Amino acid sequence: MDDIVIEMTEEPELKDAILIEGLPGVGNVGKLAVEHLMDEIDATQFGEIYSIYFPPQVLVDEDGQTELVNNRLYYCKDVGEDSRDLIILTGDYQGMTPQGQYQLTDKVLGLAEDLNINMVFSLGGYSQGKMVEEPRVLGAATDHELVHQMEDIGVTFSEEDPSSGIVGASGLLLGLGKNMYGFNGICIMGETSGYFVDPTAARGVLEILAEYLTLDLSYEELDDKAEEVEELTNKIADMDMSQGMQQESTNEDLNYIG
Amino acid sequence: MDDIVIEMTEEPELKDAILIEGLPGVGNVGKLAVEHLMDEIDATQFGEIYSIYFPPQVLVDEDGQTELVNNRLYYCKDVGEDSRDLIILTGDYQGMTPQGQYQLTDKVLGLAEDLNINMVFSLGGYSQGKMVEEPRVLGAATDHELVHQMEDIGVTFSEEDPSSGIVGASGLLLGLGKNMYGFNGICIMGETSGYFVDPTAARGVLEILAEYLTLDLSYEELDDKAEEVEELTNKIADMDMSQGMQQESTNEDLNYIG
Amino acid sequence: MDDIVIEMTEEPELKDAILIEGLPGVGNVGKLAVEHLMDEIDATQFGEIYSIYFPPQVLVDEDGQTELVNNRLYYCKDVGEDSRDLIILTGDYQGMTPQGQYQLTDKVLGLAEDLNINMVFSLGGYSQGKMVEEPRVLGAATDHELVHQMEDIGVTFSEEDPSSGIVGASGLLLGLGKNMYGFNGICIMGETSGYFVDPTAARGVLEILAEYLTLDLSYEELDDKAEEVEELTNKIADMDMSQGMQQESTNEDLNYIG
Amino acid sequence: MDDIVIEMTEEPELKDAILIEGLPGVGNVGKLAVEHLMDEIDATQFGEIYSIYFPPQVLVDEDGQTELVNNRLYYCKDVGEDSRDLIILTGDYQGMTPQGQYQLTDKVLGLAEDLNINMVFSLGGYSQGKMVEEPRVLGAATDHELVHQMEDIGVTFSEEDPSSGIVGASGLLLGLGKNMYGFNGICIMGETSGYFVDPTAARGVLEILAEYLTLDLSYEELDDKAEEVEELTNKIADMDMSQGMQQESTNEDLNYIG
Repeated sequence: MDDIVIEMTEEPELKDAILIEGLPGVGNVGKLAVEHLMDEIDATQFGEIYSIYFPPQVLVDEDGQTELVNNRLYYCKDVGEDSRDLIILTGDYQGMTPQGQYQLTDKVLGLAEDLNINMVFSLGGYSQGKMVEEPRVLGAATDHELVHQMEDIGVTFSEEDPSSGIVGASGLLLGLGKNMYGFNGICIMGETSGYFVDPTAARGVLEILAEYLTLDLSYEELDDKAEEVEELTNKIADMDMSQGMQQESTNEDLNYIG
Repeated sequence: MDDIVIEMTEEPELKDAILIEGLPGVGNVGKLAVEHLMDEIDATQFGEIYSIYFPPQVLVDEDGQTELVNNRLYYCKDVGEDSRDLIILTGDYQGMTPQGQYQLTDKVLGLAEDLNINMVFSLGGYSQGKMVEEPRVLGAATDHELVHQMEDIGVTFSEEDPSSGIVGASGLLLGLGKNMYGFNGICIMGETSGYFVDPTAARGVLEILAEYLTLDLSYEELDDKAEEVEELTNKIADMDMSQGMQQESTNEDLNYIG
Repeated sequence: MDDIVIEMTEEPELKDAILIEGLPGVGNVGKLAVEHLMDEIDATQFGEIYSIYFPPQVLVDEDGQTELVNNRLYYCKDVGEDSRDLIILTGDYQGMTPQGQYQLTDKVLGLAEDLNINMVFSLGGYSQGKMVEEPRVLGAATDHELVHQMEDIGVTFSEEDPSSGIVGASGLLLGLGKNMYGFNGICIMGETSGYFVDPTAARGVLEILAEYLTLDLSYEELDDKAEEVEELTNKIADMDMSQGMQQESTNEDLNYIG
Repeated sequence: MDDIVIEMTEEPELKDAILIEGLPGVGNVGKLAVEHLMDEIDATQFGEIYSIYFPPQVLVDEDGQTELVNNRLYYCKDVGEDSRDLIILTGDYQGMTPQGQYQLTDKVLGLAEDLNINMVFSLGGYSQGKMVEEPRVLGAATDHELVHQMEDIGVTFSEEDPSSGIVGASGLLLGLGKNMYGFNGICIMGETSGYFVDPTAARGVLEILAEYLTLDLSYEELDDKAEEVEELTNKIADMDMSQGMQQESTNEDLNYIG
């Protein structure tokens, strides 16, 4: 088999489209955000990506049916007041090795180019390693004009954060996208403790994206999920297991929400 | 050398055959099961697989003779009341890296296609991390019809298990088999503590497979092995080394049985 | 994408040029040294190297702009009294795997050959794992004549150091350069504790290189950085946190200087 | 560069030759043995192997001269009473990854076939993890006739040892040699504590090899080295640092001897 296999069920015809990435990562922020977005704008799946760079694994749904781990591509046309076409990338895993990350990202960008995408918008979480009272949405972009444009709609650009750069698909889509394909790119990251899946941070990045796309979104489901997480974390706090917090971050109840 | 080398001593002529996988894994359940099956139905070896994805190692038998680590392919025709043709895959190791797992599985599936296989049946263990009083046989399948069919013959399909999917050859044979080759697939997993090789769990999965193939099997040898393991575990329990259990799981006596 | 991509903005015309390497490493000595050198001689960037062997990461500058991690190539002509042409290699990371190290080094050497380089001069640090009162500059070279030549200008060749050879780009550029391209090569290493970035060690190797190139350099900026580091280490010492030293080596203030 | 580069300075004309392997490994037994053998029979180097599967490193000799890490090939004709031609393989490292081990071994075997080798004789150590009073020489071979032949000249074939097979070049040369090239093969392993380089174990395997080749060898130098090691280990024992033994195994004095 090829190292990366993209199976497309449809070839959407798009113009000046934006590639939005929300793969699993810190606090599952990016994935939560794009999943909510897709529900709201009724996106259509058109592609699946399999790869030797993913874990050798099938997932099993509640009915016992198996699904090979993959990444998935969706599209939606004429989104928001400016009628932008969108491609959305999400999935079960990111590539498991640095080389796999590069090859997967390059393959997606090559496809994006064929589909007339000219911009990348990657979503993620930024772990502060502690509870964050008023989570900001941090940003980085491939050029200064985009930085200013994003500042105007509420994104924080900070000298300190992200101090070590942006690792993984969110970073590479900007880096390779700019250098190899000439795409402009923005990455926005919701601040999060990093201890559990964080629907609140997901709402934060989604609000920025909606503002950018001049799009009205309801956040009800995300807010419900955020409440569930809060209840669970309060329960834990009540049990006075402050040092057990990190351990609980692998708690199935909490991660199930993602 | 090629990354994967398949040496065939014979090209069996089969029709509508089933590929049965029992490679080493949790509790060595799958391997124990297919080894017992092959004894009972008198299967014939026709292929050996060498690969750079296996450990760089020869095994040494009791007489001092070396054998390069490999996977092995066997066949048996007209098995059970429905006269099904079988290919059986077992071996010393699974691929050691995710990429190796993908490539090995894909190579086997390609060969399986050439040999007119249209279904995959993978056998394994499911570790509960604690002693299991009445071990169930858990299942997953590539489509709902198979799920129902397997439920009818005693396989448990559970929302909770396997919660994290199926990792390794057992999972990939279903996932790649379905997506790349159009094979239907079933995976059945015998519940086991995961502490030592588990002939009882192997008997469990084999009973299901026999039922599926309308095949009569004697389980004497598996039961003898199960007794050996039980005696050894009782001995350990008598020594009141409850917390030493896990450590003993690497005990040569216990694993030797596999 | 290719495993290694070299993007050149200019093809400098050089003769009998020297390839000088200062990639990140022990005490960041080599990178500090070449960065200072390039400021002093006003070197011109002409190439960038991207690779799947680097981390999948973009760096973010203080204004929020992203840059794909890379290695960079610079040149400067007619340097020093002997008017030598120089190529300088520096960057954000070395290759992350042994195989990546080999492939990256070989690619750079192939390019170096095309640009008429006939000698490699690699700069690095040599960690003593303890504070070094009077740091020496240690050396190794591809042939005895170069060893003697370097001894004459103050490089120490020691039977004990480096006892385990030279690992990474500094070593491979000499090894592959000699065996595959016939280049002569010298590696000089500034002794350093290895606890933090070490501008003093960088000055040490740079003085040798300047002597070799009969080049006058000012070391003001390096000395300023050395002072900053010393102040910080004294502060730590004052806090009587002797055993915290190693921990502090990851202190952002200290490493920021690099 | 190719993944493996073999540079040959001479193509020896041999007939029915034996490939003898003594690469670094447990107690450095194999390497010590072949190095001593080569001194005694005056072997001639004819090839060097470089590879991306070796560490990215140059070694530095006592005069400061660098050498890219490699494996080396030597030959000697008409050795012993039966006038056997020999190829000897030794070097600085074995391949660092399983895949590298396979590719390196296969490359060496392909060259060996071109040079009319029809047998592999690999030498190594077998770690018992404790001091061994009367070290045996353990063996394994590709077929039963060779097992009996080696038993007759003092090799021990044991059901227990090596229980987990033979890992690395010594094992793969037999396994791939037999399966892919049709070579017969013998591996003999000197029992050793595994704590330090073991010239005594090296003498043990060399005596067997000499017997097999009907060759007279002096063991003076190996015995001198064995004495050095013994003195050092006694010194350690005197210091009553029984539990420090393992730590001392990385003592430079002891390993320097190898």
